[in-house]
Amino acid sequence: MSVKRIDHIAIVVSDIDEATAFYRDVLGLPVAHTERVDEQEVIVACLPTGDSDIELIQPVDETSGVAKYLAKHGPGIHHICLEVEDIEQSLADLKAAGVKLINREPTIGAGGKRIAFLHPKSAHGVLIELSEAAK
Amino acid sequence: MSVKRIDHIAIVVSDIDEATAFYRDVLGLPVAHTERVDEQEVIVACLPTGDSDIELIQPVDETSGVAKYLAKHGPGIHHICLEVEDIEQSLADLKAAGVKLINREPTIGAGGKRIAFLHPKSAHGVLIELSEAAK
Repeated sequence: MSVKRIDHIAIVVSDIDEATAFYRDVLGLPVAHTERVDEQEVIVACLPTGDSDIELIQPVDETSGVAKYLAKHGPGIHHICLEVEDIEQSLADLKAAGVKLINREPTIGAGGKRIAFLHPKSAHGVLIELSEAAK
Repeated sequence: MSVKRIDHIAIVVSDIDEATAFYRDVLGLPVAHTERVDEQEVIVACLPTGDSDIELIQPVDETSGVAKYLAKHGPGIHHICLEVEDIEQSLADLKAAGVKLINREPTIGAGGKRIAFLHPKSAHGVLIELSEAAK
């Protein structure tokens, strides 16, 4: 598989307005946009940082994976997303290598991109998302 | 303060050889170098990923902050490092904004760069490192 860059780092927060104010007003990062991603039951604020984004994520209910993570661990870094050239080829390579996957087929994430998550058990404790580069 | 890019994402691991093998052989990332950073009591493997690095970090004793983090939380994402134009100006701005700092003055990190850590209590649970861009 071929990783091109870190697409984003996702940070789970309990109050996206307060967190966005910190990253924007104190750290000086721009806020490109904020959107609700119904598939993941979250509100996402996207802050471009060099060639990657910092994504602040607040769950909108108490049943999503992100909500359960927040309840268990508190706010903090949730996952990193690596942009790959070809997500289907990447998933095929990972399956061949015996890597445990949360999504065995691509699903749809923020911005309509095709994404898939690896299981942290296969990645030394890190939740890794893959996203396919726009064609 | 002015953030230029994500310098690196640091991932704490218990076995840097196994972790490096996963990121290199399975995810296909290059390994630029591995070094021992005595100030932080860690071994660091540096894997360039687009405009940023993924840094795998293994503690070399049981007393460092990284070792205690690993013992308490297990392997996973430890911190993110943001490259800033001027670290002294950034720390002055953060102090003026009332942000809690781990390093109130710059210290020396991997590669001899000038760095400083913010306290996660001031950053919505995220341990943020600043590093000054090479002049």
